[in-house]
Amino acid sequence: MTVELISVGTEILLGNIVNTNAAFLAEECAGLGLSCYYQSVVGDNEERLCAAIETALGRSDILILGGGLGPTQDDLTKECAAKVLGKELQMDPHSKERIEVYFQKRGLTLTENNWKQAMVPEGAIVIDNDNGTAPGLILEKGEQAVLLLPGPPNELKPMFLNKMVPYLRKKQPTVIFSEMVKICGVGESIAETMIRDLIDAQTNPTIATYAKTSEVHIRVTAKADSKKEAKALVEPMVKELKKRFVNHIYTCDENVTLEQALVDMLKKEGLTISTAESCTGGMVASRLIGVPGVSETYKSGLITYSNKAKRRLLGVKSNTLKEFGAVSEQVAKQMAKGVAKLTGADVTIATTGIAGPDGGSEEKPVGLVYVAVYVKGQTMVRKFQFDGNREKIRQVSTAQALIFARKCILGSNI
Amino acid sequence: MTVELISVGTEILLGNIVNTNAAFLAEECAGLGLSCYYQSVVGDNEERLCAAIETALGRSDILILGGGLGPTQDDLTKECAAKVLGKELQMDPHSKERIEVYFQKRGLTLTENNWKQAMVPEGAIVIDNDNGTAPGLILEKGEQAVLLLPGPPNELKPMFLNKMVPYLRKKQPTVIFSEMVKICGVGESIAETMIRDLIDAQTNPTIATYAKTSEVHIRVTAKADSKKEAKALVEPMVKELKKRFVNHIYTCDENVTLEQALVDMLKKEGLTISTAESCTGGMVASRLIGVPGVSETYKSGLITYSNKAKRRLLGVKSNTLKEFGAVSEQVAKQMAKGVAKLTGADVTIATTGIAGPDGGSEEKPVGLVYVAVYVKGQTMVRKFQFDGNREKIRQVSTAQALIFARKCILGSNI
Repeated sequence: MTVELISVGTEILLGNIVNTNAAFLAEECAGLGLSCYYQSVVGDNEERLCAAIETALGRSDILILGGGLGPTQDDLTKECAAKVLGKELQMDPHSKERIEVYFQKRGLTLTENNWKQAMVPEGAIVIDNDNGTAPGLILEKGEQAVLLLPGPPNELKPMFLNKMVPYLRKKQPTVIFSEMVKICGVGESIAETMIRDLIDAQTNPTIATYAKTSEVHIRVTAKADSKKEAKALVEPMVKELKKRFVNHIYTCDENVTLEQALVDMLKKEGLTISTAESCTGGMVASRLIGVPGVSETYKSGLITYSNKAKRRLLGVKSNTLKEFGAVSEQVAKQMAKGVAKLTGADVTIATTGIAGPDGGSEEKPVGLVYVAVYVKGQTMVRKFQFDGNREKIRQVSTAQALIFARKCILGSNI
Repeated sequence: MTVELISVGTEILLGNIVNTNAAFLAEECAGLGLSCYYQSVVGDNEERLCAAIETALGRSDILILGGGLGPTQDDLTKECAAKVLGKELQMDPHSKERIEVYFQKRGLTLTENNWKQAMVPEGAIVIDNDNGTAPGLILEKGEQAVLLLPGPPNELKPMFLNKMVPYLRKKQPTVIFSEMVKICGVGESIAETMIRDLIDAQTNPTIATYAKTSEVHIRVTAKADSKKEAKALVEPMVKELKKRFVNHIYTCDENVTLEQALVDMLKKEGLTISTAESCTGGMVASRLIGVPGVSETYKSGLITYSNKAKRRLLGVKSNTLKEFGAVSEQVAKQMAKGVAKLTGADVTIATTGIAGPDGGSEEKPVGLVYVAVYVKGQTMVRKFQFDGNREKIRQVSTAQALIFARKCILGSNI
């Protein structure tokens, strides 16, 4: 079965935003065993949008359109899809009520154009939007289906995963089963070299590697007539990957993030955690607190961006700051110990570094970052030198801090 | 003049990589005054690639193709473009010599397939690649042009900027100029209603609205023969928008974020800031610390997720926690005051809320969030009820916390 992605939005055509939705949908569709031969981007223009939908319907089984479902007159995706499929728009009372409640809850004033979002093509399957006002839609034409999703990634992604994926699974005659092996602490090219032979020999299951920030995800996918058969094809490969990557694998569960795996590990060991951040400035804490149910594990965090804050809140010594500078192994260690003492946590993570664009020197260039991890009385520290802009350096530092904490807790030399 | 982008690569179709080349090229083309109505992605497949080129030639003046110029048999872009334009491939002695030198310099062994990269369609303008082996190419067909670029971003970007832009400038007489007016504290539909008349009457300049998390961005774009003329068309419209949205506009600079505007405001007033976060757990701090040069303004932050941390680190009273609960106006206020006292900051932001998915009740549902802002002795608090998943609630809370802080500092009742 083939799938085609159409992203709708002038802001993509103008290069205002990078089309991360397409990458997300493409990856998910590959995981579902759908073959994608075309992706396209069109603006909020009736003629061109209708033409794009018609062309796609002429060559693909499933169309996924993202964007253009907003309340404004610019937003035309639903109207164009209905037009091409020869369907009238009608008011959906359920969506109308949901929009009313959405606005009431927030004490916002509804304007006339909001009702536009409750208009749906006749016969459409309406998909509730839990993160916004525009409902998603599935329009069917014989065996073909046109899926409409709202453009904002925080609406599109959960709606696709929770509501569209089950629909697409049902449409597929073959059963696709895939497992995602998530690896940290190994670079993408090294990871690929380690499994070059497996990639070259792949047929069913297939193996695809995805480079994420400081992680590599390997998706093993098999097609078969039943889930049991597909699973039986996937399992030996996953076993082989586990043999090769050992402790670098932090999960084989698609939905588990690195921070979730770390929190699970802490919970299992009955350990609590606190953080002390300088250059990452809240990012490490934010990823940990993103894990639902973290409250029994996460104690508290300090963001000590200035030297004064490091001294006053964490007890970092003035002499150490003077002698070695704020971005040093010694200060990272004292931060980790200081926040452990202050909060009584079993494990702490501390970061200090130069995120740039200013503040670098020959001796300490932009991208120099120290991460210290305290585990029950022991403090370990690691030095990194990252590339990229401020945002990139902070993100990679955060990921590496979580990875280093995991490694220290594991206590193994991975 | 119109431009169309075709990205060639199976790795984009599979979602292995995000198509940042397209965003880069789109933005550069917009800056050159080229109208881009279509972007597409196709794999390394002769039939589909030829069809894509033919379709594009039928509707656009300039085609830019990225990727598929490598030395392997998979790489077909040049072959397909030549085929569609009816041109033969021939050896380019200049490119052949460059490839030889490239390999010699690096001590690499040339293989037979490397010569493939020196084959060019007859009559093509050959563009040297300073960062790799595949030359870029410009093929002309009457007034139309097909530009071929290598796929790796570190080859594509400099080649486009240094070699292709001058060619396109010569072809394109018109100049485009745009300004981005960024608004906070007004929803997208209300914002659009407020400028409905302007949108309806738009010709040159055009007006486009973009909904961001708790923000609305309005782009005003004009085309003219010179930058000066285009600017003169944009300016009265921006002035009109400023009149309508007054203090809700936090910047008219494309590159300035909400947090940057807040930090600039603090710097201008000579104020320092600290944060105390519960449900947002580091996100408010993280956005502020994302601003380069924030160190003189940001003092420190506390992440007090547990009640104990709120009491011990911020001095929130046990009685208050017992009587009103951690998610309450009273606790938010005490957090804001507590972190002000602890860190001596002039301004503080405090958040407490229920991010879910668990922890909600009828009285205090998931999505209930209080934000308190302390400004030089005065503490203000605002109650919000947000929808969505944990991630969404935390992101919106963070954005609204920054917006509320801005409002409190402005002291006006916007």
